[in-house]
Amino acid sequence: MKIDDAIEVVKPHLTQKRFEHTLRVRDTAVKLAEKYGESKLKAELAAVFHDYCKYRSLDEMERIIKMDPLPKDLLKFHHELWHGPVASILIEKEYGIKDNDVQRAIYYHTTGRANMSKLEMIIFLADYIEPGREFPGLQEVREVAETNLVHACWMTSKNMISFLMSKNAIIYPDTFYAYNDLTIRTNGGNN
Amino acid sequence: MKIDDAIEVVKPHLTQKRFEHTLRVRDTAVKLAEKYGESKLKAELAAVFHDYCKYRSLDEMERIIKMDPLPKDLLKFHHELWHGPVASILIEKEYGIKDNDVQRAIYYHTTGRANMSKLEMIIFLADYIEPGREFPGLQEVREVAETNLVHACWMTSKNMISFLMSKNAIIYPDTFYAYNDLTIRTNGGNN
Repeated sequence: MKIDDAIEVVKPHLTQKRFEHTLRVRDTAVKLAEKYGESKLKAELAAVFHDYCKYRSLDEMERIIKMDPLPKDLLKFHHELWHGPVASILIEKEYGIKDNDVQRAIYYHTTGRANMSKLEMIIFLADYIEPGREFPGLQEVREVAETNLVHACWMTSKNMISFLMSKNAIIYPDTFYAYNDLTIRTNGGNN
Repeated sequence: MKIDDAIEVVKPHLTQKRFEHTLRVRDTAVKLAEKYGESKLKAELAAVFHDYCKYRSLDEMERIIKMDPLPKDLLKFHHELWHGPVASILIEKEYGIKDNDVQRAIYYHTTGRANMSKLEMIIFLADYIEPGREFPGLQEVREVAETNLVHACWMTSKNMISFLMSKNAIIYPDTFYAYNDLTIRTNGGNN
């Protein structure tokens, strides 16, 4: 699918604010893809579709998680975690986008996971650092993202866990696994 | 095994400092057992043996982890996590202490896990709050331990994760699972 068509497809599914976020994630992802030698086309497509299912009804997402080959334990966690996996399924069903790299980047953009590919890291990070975001510690991640993709993703996973714990929220295991894996990959682990 | 015999058995395996810590964990565990209606005998036995293998050689612990029915992924994590599981095996082999409740409390005293029993929580918590410990946030956990065992263990797991992340250390999954499970059990989870 051409990127302009993808943008037209996604737009009606998002609020104006979320659509503008999506375009900023797209721009950020493209820059990261250029910097780290990843396919710009894949980064752009994954970014444009990453929040495609953000406003699907909970009933529809729950049905898709139950029917399709998605882990059922998602249903025990906050529904904010559902839209990535669901979108990875629906872009194939609805638009024939069958590209494992792109689909996995969309799937894991909220949680991260162990052994993220470069494209997965780019979407995970772009969603976190796009210029519309603003919260404590973010500027530091943006600076590291200029030179070290893995380290910036490690900081992101760590910030996410700290944030969720500060809210007394349960944390999806993939986010923990992402932190452990990225800790080892950045040689920061003292194990 | 009588508790005085257990103390005599354990003593030569520990430094003087660690032995004194063990006695304080014993005292703390007994108080928690009385408060929360758990077997004092089991709490005392688990507490006395909880650090029994703390000073075993890494080679010996590695051999036991490889030979016995212990998860091999332990070897990928810091060896500080090995002595609990190894002790749960050796107290049975060496002294015939075959008591799943006690063995599990020893096994999980460092990491915690999801679905901890009352005895497991008592040893996990006693090891953390015994009066010889001193670090930021501990007094708050001690106060909560007076009235709410699960909540105090939840605070402990949260503090452990924060501490390990502040050291850029990888974290054994059982500690994450403990946090998630205790978050739900304390009704603090916003999932």
